[in-house]
Amino acid sequence: MAQKFVVIIAGGKGERFWPQSRAHRPKHLLPIVGKKPLLVQTLERVRALVPAKNIFVITSAVQAKAVREVCAKLPAANIIAEPVGRDTAPAVGLAAALVGARDPQGIFAVLPADHVIHDAKAYQRDLRVAFAAAESAPVMVTIGISPTEPATGFGYIQRGEAWQKFENCPVYRVKRFVEKPTLAVAKGYLAGGDYIWNAGMFVWSVPVVTAALAKHAPELDTALKPIRAALAKRKALAPVLAKVYPKLTKISVDYALLEKSDNVVVLPSSFDWDDVGAWPAVPKHYEKDASGNVTRGRALIEGGSNNIVFSEGNHLLAVLGTDDFIIVHTPDATLVAPKSKAQEIKLLLKRIEAEKDGQRWL
Amino acid sequence: MAQKFVVIIAGGKGERFWPQSRAHRPKHLLPIVGKKPLLVQTLERVRALVPAKNIFVITSAVQAKAVREVCAKLPAANIIAEPVGRDTAPAVGLAAALVGARDPQGIFAVLPADHVIHDAKAYQRDLRVAFAAAESAPVMVTIGISPTEPATGFGYIQRGEAWQKFENCPVYRVKRFVEKPTLAVAKGYLAGGDYIWNAGMFVWSVPVVTAALAKHAPELDTALKPIRAALAKRKALAPVLAKVYPKLTKISVDYALLEKSDNVVVLPSSFDWDDVGAWPAVPKHYEKDASGNVTRGRALIEGGSNNIVFSEGNHLLAVLGTDDFIIVHTPDATLVAPKSKAQEIKLLLKRIEAEKDGQRWL
Repeated sequence: MAQKFVVIIAGGKGERFWPQSRAHRPKHLLPIVGKKPLLVQTLERVRALVPAKNIFVITSAVQAKAVREVCAKLPAANIIAEPVGRDTAPAVGLAAALVGARDPQGIFAVLPADHVIHDAKAYQRDLRVAFAAAESAPVMVTIGISPTEPATGFGYIQRGEAWQKFENCPVYRVKRFVEKPTLAVAKGYLAGGDYIWNAGMFVWSVPVVTAALAKHAPELDTALKPIRAALAKRKALAPVLAKVYPKLTKISVDYALLEKSDNVVVLPSSFDWDDVGAWPAVPKHYEKDASGNVTRGRALIEGGSNNIVFSEGNHLLAVLGTDDFIIVHTPDATLVAPKSKAQEIKLLLKRIEAEKDGQRWL
Repeated sequence: MAQKFVVIIAGGKGERFWPQSRAHRPKHLLPIVGKKPLLVQTLERVRALVPAKNIFVITSAVQAKAVREVCAKLPAANIIAEPVGRDTAPAVGLAAALVGARDPQGIFAVLPADHVIHDAKAYQRDLRVAFAAAESAPVMVTIGISPTEPATGFGYIQRGEAWQKFENCPVYRVKRFVEKPTLAVAKGYLAGGDYIWNAGMFVWSVPVVTAALAKHAPELDTALKPIRAALAKRKALAPVLAKVYPKLTKISVDYALLEKSDNVVVLPSSFDWDDVGAWPAVPKHYEKDASGNVTRGRALIEGGSNNIVFSEGNHLLAVLGTDDFIIVHTPDATLVAPKSKAQEIKLLLKRIEAEKDGQRWL
């Protein structure tokens, strides 16, 4: 029987939760929600399904040190740093190579590190279902999220007819993948009922991914060969990655493989899910005071409502008569912004980058 | 000829400029405007008129250490700490005792420590005029500020007929003192042209103040006797103050002496003046950026206007899309408030006081 693996993709630039997140400490390394970093929460959820030796984390060079620290329970060789980011298609190719070196028939899940999921049991059940589906046939299983609002920040998957059931959960054929829609289109998707959010969660076998690479992304497939060879010979991976990665084209796995394949199925998730895209998404996971404020650390709000006020250290963050603001203090930098401007944080980070010594705050 | 003295009253609770100001470091100990603490700026202005040995500073017990540090050029015995605050009448009585022990005919100015005055030459000229007036006759000279707006935060002085000129500057008799008016009344005062702001600046002789105390505040006059006796015998002052002060009644010199006296004259000032009552009064003394923001320290504002953004240390205060806010970072506490709420800072400080360990931030 094929072994099962989980590959966690832990990347990101650490922009949207600045100043708590930084380039070397992005969202998945922070306890944005809960007491542990989101990556650790993800690890703990999947540990119920596969042993530590079968869990890989693919991260970036600048985050590798911090990822190794929080993933101390994983074998060191299971944490791989991409020397440069090339989007998800190369990462999935690398994942297939890593798993394939352990079990050429291996089945593996690719999961994001930085989503908030409270119902671990449902998550584990859905993953079991997806593993069973991927084991039963040469398909690419996506776990989609049933939409709760007409979100324009996610891609959507349109499901087709029912394909099979596992543990009584229906898995559907996929009609098509669609990119981030406009609000009007998203409203139509929500009303239609057959569109599901693409959350970047996939389960498949090494042979299925390898065949898809060969068919739909032959250049990438060829470029990955030295990596597979190094793994087969148990050679050090870092020098090979350093050689191969800079030459790869940036491309997402959705675009490179999934949209072009006709063997994709989708399992609508039964767990709660939130990608917590930016500061304004945080409050729904916290207890609020009577005025709708969410605080962490030494925060004091007098006559203000619906604020996010987070303070690190024993620093008093005192807020007077302010509504709907994000105020986040860290030892070396503080952000003050109305929630309505949260999406413009990249403009602020560009300004910081241009400052003298600006890099120290990024 | 009588010697001249200056007594600077350096009190205050440090509330209105929190978190830069604290109980032990109120406004006059901060460089709210300029590079040096306002008290030091005041000292430097009056040093052109009287020698250091003739300058006294009356402050509070909690501020004494910091005052001694910034007033290192004054004789240590010239810095006196009131054990408890009892408003300005006891302070003026103490001032008269201090000066009287040096010269029973001494003429002295009582000046606040925490006002912003840019035109030192005009200030010095007006003080010279006031000294000359106080030397020429047994009068109480007040230096009033010609109002520029219908302020409701100051008391007013209504001037009567012209009394005398010194250095070509007219000094007027005082018709009456009035307390802080309503806006409508203040507008009338401004239109009338004969009302002047009471800025708490007085020049008079020891005999004039002593006689006024005996006549209008006999209880206070009696209570001050042990202080005068200790000074006459060159005994340590602190133990006597510790005994006398707690029993004194809280009362302002305006109410205790000036309003009841018929020998009060007023010199309308020729210098610029600002008591910088709270954070929103700060920007007019600073250079603004193109969007009307005023910054100090490592502050960065993206898409925001008319803010005050002050940061101490090398801490980056990053503000996004925020207008008309006060954002002040200090190493242990940060304030975020719209300018329109600046007057409510006392509510915030009451909340802080009620917090566990709250005193450490006051």
